[in-house]
Amino acid sequence: MLSIGVDIGGTKIAAGVVDEAGTIIAATTRSTPATDPELIEAAVADAVVELRAQHDVVGVGVGAAGFVGADRRTVVFAANLAWRHRPLADELERLVSLPVVVENDANAAGWAEFRFGAATEAEHMLMVTVGTGLGGAIVLNGELVRGSGGFAGEIAHMTAVPNGQWCGCGRRGCLEQYTAGTALVRTAKRRAATGDPLMGPLVQAAGGAKKEIDGPLITRLAQQGDPGARELIAEIGSWLGEGLASISALLDPEVIVVGGGVSAAGDLLLDPAREAYATHLTARMHRSIAPFEVAQMGNRAGIVGAADLAR
Amino acid sequence: MLSIGVDIGGTKIAAGVVDEAGTIIAATTRSTPATDPELIEAAVADAVVELRAQHDVVGVGVGAAGFVGADRRTVVFAANLAWRHRPLADELERLVSLPVVVENDANAAGWAEFRFGAATEAEHMLMVTVGTGLGGAIVLNGELVRGSGGFAGEIAHMTAVPNGQWCGCGRRGCLEQYTAGTALVRTAKRRAATGDPLMGPLVQAAGGAKKEIDGPLITRLAQQGDPGARELIAEIGSWLGEGLASISALLDPEVIVVGGGVSAAGDLLLDPAREAYATHLTARMHRSIAPFEVAQMGNRAGIVGAADLAR
Amino acid sequence: MLSIGVDIGGTKIAAGVVDEAGTIIAATTRSTPATDPELIEAAVADAVVELRAQHDVVGVGVGAAGFVGADRRTVVFAANLAWRHRPLADELERLVSLPVVVENDANAAGWAEFRFGAATEAEHMLMVTVGTGLGGAIVLNGELVRGSGGFAGEIAHMTAVPNGQWCGCGRRGCLEQYTAGTALVRTAKRRAATGDPLMGPLVQAAGGAKKEIDGPLITRLAQQGDPGARELIAEIGSWLGEGLASISALLDPEVIVVGGGVSAAGDLLLDPAREAYATHLTARMHRSIAPFEVAQMGNRAGIVGAADLAR
Amino acid sequence: MLSIGVDIGGTKIAAGVVDEAGTIIAATTRSTPATDPELIEAAVADAVVELRAQHDVVGVGVGAAGFVGADRRTVVFAANLAWRHRPLADELERLVSLPVVVENDANAAGWAEFRFGAATEAEHMLMVTVGTGLGGAIVLNGELVRGSGGFAGEIAHMTAVPNGQWCGCGRRGCLEQYTAGTALVRTAKRRAATGDPLMGPLVQAAGGAKKEIDGPLITRLAQQGDPGARELIAEIGSWLGEGLASISALLDPEVIVVGGGVSAAGDLLLDPAREAYATHLTARMHRSIAPFEVAQMGNRAGIVGAADLAR
Repeated sequence: MLSIGVDIGGTKIAAGVVDEAGTIIAATTRSTPATDPELIEAAVADAVVELRAQHDVVGVGVGAAGFVGADRRTVVFAANLAWRHRPLADELERLVSLPVVVENDANAAGWAEFRFGAATEAEHMLMVTVGTGLGGAIVLNGELVRGSGGFAGEIAHMTAVPNGQWCGCGRRGCLEQYTAGTALVRTAKRRAATGDPLMGPLVQAAGGAKKEIDGPLITRLAQQGDPGARELIAEIGSWLGEGLASISALLDPEVIVVGGGVSAAGDLLLDPAREAYATHLTARMHRSIAPFEVAQMGNRAGIVGAADLAR
Repeated sequence: MLSIGVDIGGTKIAAGVVDEAGTIIAATTRSTPATDPELIEAAVADAVVELRAQHDVVGVGVGAAGFVGADRRTVVFAANLAWRHRPLADELERLVSLPVVVENDANAAGWAEFRFGAATEAEHMLMVTVGTGLGGAIVLNGELVRGSGGFAGEIAHMTAVPNGQWCGCGRRGCLEQYTAGTALVRTAKRRAATGDPLMGPLVQAAGGAKKEIDGPLITRLAQQGDPGARELIAEIGSWLGEGLASISALLDPEVIVVGGGVSAAGDLLLDPAREAYATHLTARMHRSIAPFEVAQMGNRAGIVGAADLAR
Repeated sequence: MLSIGVDIGGTKIAAGVVDEAGTIIAATTRSTPATDPELIEAAVADAVVELRAQHDVVGVGVGAAGFVGADRRTVVFAANLAWRHRPLADELERLVSLPVVVENDANAAGWAEFRFGAATEAEHMLMVTVGTGLGGAIVLNGELVRGSGGFAGEIAHMTAVPNGQWCGCGRRGCLEQYTAGTALVRTAKRRAATGDPLMGPLVQAAGGAKKEIDGPLITRLAQQGDPGARELIAEIGSWLGEGLASISALLDPEVIVVGGGVSAAGDLLLDPAREAYATHLTARMHRSIAPFEVAQMGNRAGIVGAADLAR
Repeated sequence: MLSIGVDIGGTKIAAGVVDEAGTIIAATTRSTPATDPELIEAAVADAVVELRAQHDVVGVGVGAAGFVGADRRTVVFAANLAWRHRPLADELERLVSLPVVVENDANAAGWAEFRFGAATEAEHMLMVTVGTGLGGAIVLNGELVRGSGGFAGEIAHMTAVPNGQWCGCGRRGCLEQYTAGTALVRTAKRRAATGDPLMGPLVQAAGGAKKEIDGPLITRLAQQGDPGARELIAEIGSWLGEGLASISALLDPEVIVVGGGVSAAGDLLLDPAREAYATHLTARMHRSIAPFEVAQMGNRAGIVGAADLAR
């Protein structure tokens, strides 16, 4: 039984035909047409039509950044795209004549890891995606947790620091402001601006231009052993571990999967996260400590997870 | 189909026969025998035997404070009782010859509210018990969330304040240190000790003895309109609302039920909690705000929930 | 004995001849020539030459935003002007042939209040200037405290919130990020962006444009009784009071003078500040609580203080 | 010109005749008589009478823990002794017929370091005493800063963490709760209680009894290289450095002297303090960083400083 998964990103729409083992057996892409909802839908439909022409599929799963209604049909709000209470599933079903479900992209990715990737042995999984921002997906008793309105898993906006850094969401101290790519780069730039000598190699690697510092550069220097870059990533990791300890107090997951661009730093990120997690986890004498695993599905996760959720 | 629910408290063991509508049709109590595990088990068994003599029951549910294994049979750790990795269900089944399940007491109480009390209309519920300490129970998709090891729902030990007040759990800044009866009383005593004039009526009501200030006294004065007592309860409420906003970012519950001794203060507690919750909840423009309901099952909740979970 | 005081602002250079009673008996202004140090010095000299032509003065005091060396002759660093280790006194003495001293502008303003304004009765004064940013001046035993390098009084950059809001200084959680005009406006905009209904009147008064919200608008609405604007100013005031309580633990001032643009809000700012101060001040049962006074010298303070310090 | 210095401690009254070079040329002690003010005064007088019998002295300086009035004659409040608004200088002058001044003990010790110890080259000094609690002394322009009521220098009760650990002073988050001997020991015990393996050697060294862990034991293990003990002291040091950075924003001292029992750990304490200080100090690119010096006067500081202040 095949299904199609679609991952709508800010610049690219990636679609694939996925089998029951989570393998993508055919794929195609479109560029994301700016911010016009109808054009995006047309592009998605176009990709689906191309794929279904060659494969017999039972349905389509679409993953999108943003708040997706619990009915799995409506995009309530998407920060980067122009959808507001958009009945995306209805629109697409009309265009492609296949059953469509919509999922939050972090949920889709998390589901892929749970079914086919780093957490296939688990019943209870927490996945955290550390990219530019911070995403989360929760699986309990083998089921994806969407919450009453579809807003569950927003670990980015749990409060890490009361009265802390202002967040784009209008609140202060959100975890995302401390442990995601944006936080990583901002900290590097701020420290560089104060003349912190540890930031010297990083500024040099950025050609002397502080504003050119970005996440991949920091990761690369860290992997080459630069102490300043390592300290920056370790700080992100510590905040991550501390935040996850609070989440584990609440959910007691079996395994924690860490994905997203920043997870490319591997143990440079995860070791400090593990240490902070163990330090901040309540009752650690009495419980087993959930292992931290690096996500395995890479950028296929969105397609595979969305497709599987559509079955 | 009847079952027996047992609520093992620090001073009293309460047991009852519960029907499928959540009504207690017969009840009995025993005092809790200090801290000897075997004596406690004997007392529980004694109460069960008394009740089953008159009623045809299918099983026994036992609620106990502490960490209960995900298998619902073992008390992993109980702070106030002497159980450490105690196979409580095995022991009781041997004594009473009935199927026994064990549940965390906050989970049992939460389940009672979900099935028969304040949240019968909901599919996704968060219950928080604000007593001397802070307890939590999570129901998602109509199922109680126990976590991989049975430790889920420990909202008491999510971090509210990095590097905040030391907690008995060995960590700093746990939410319980800011929003539970102990926190309420400690704040009152500390403010009284600094000569804060707002604490004057409270000290007077305690017969001039700061150390005699307790939770019920604060609640009573607050209900009589004393501004100092109201401020104390409102502060607890604000912390509660702020903590719940973080939890809702993660779980997006449909309704939040507030129980426990401090909830006797009603809207004096809940209004500040609602206000802080709305302020700290992410994306509040785009979502519906979960209502805060006062628990309805009172001190029957433990018995009724445990009994229902045993069916 | 007359002296000249000069207040170098971002857009205007104001100079005046000041008598020993702190009265400005003659004044002139120049616009501030962009960021060329030499042009600024020429403009200052020009103003001084104009004034001294008519008055017999003994010296010149120049107040400038930035770090001024303890020798009172050098501008070490000025964020908004182009001075870096600039021997300003030397340059000006060469141009005007009068003794010149340089002072930090907040120090000059504080000294004016101490000598002729709100704190003439005191020996120990703390002045805080709540404008766009936050400035401080300390007088102990009747002497201005400049510190070993001239950097004393930088209350803006004491840490109010560990790991809090990033500051332009490259550190996190500086007090200025919580209690100054910039913080006031940012909070208003952030709250407006989340759809907070309390911000409605403010957005309306800004013609519907959130980005047009500014400090004077907030102050005006607060004075008209708008609850949202009052809450914003009260929040700034609370942080101010909390910060001042830490400073008083260290310095135990006799009086605290509050000036700067935001102090136009008067008791709408000061009452919450007083309340938070009393709450957070250590040993308040055993000490007298320093009164908070509104600055009296207005925008003359910089000229008068600089002139007096030049005598 | 000789004078007598007296250091009233919780268990011992130490007195000495001090010359103008800060040398103690004769000394004596008494035990501190419990908490009866008159008996303490009699014991102080007795020690003074003994010393003056052999030496021609011009006056007596008495250092005591607690709040000493700005008139240097009255103990306003002493936490550990029974004085409340006690006219100590009057009482002692009556008993010994010599001029008497009273000083806060941390001020006396700081003055000794400034005049004869670690800061003789400086004009502006901050001294911090890291003992069981945290004390501070400020010297600006060569003068001891006492504040308007004599309460200056209470760095212990500056807020380090908003809503942090409750302090005995009735407020939350005081710096003393994070960087003094009490904090050191409490953290060790809490970590030991959670089964933190890093605390293993410390628990073992305490004979297996967590409650026997104390400051000297931690220091000893740290000096022997134990990683857990070193981490504990480093944490205290980091908080110290962070707190001092806020103080330096305000006062810009030339040198920072660190004394008290915990300073016996030397660079194990000071290196982390220096690092945190440099990280948290504002404008560090533009200023010189005050050196951290270990106090040199040891337990003579109280006597020598009090005696010198009496001249």
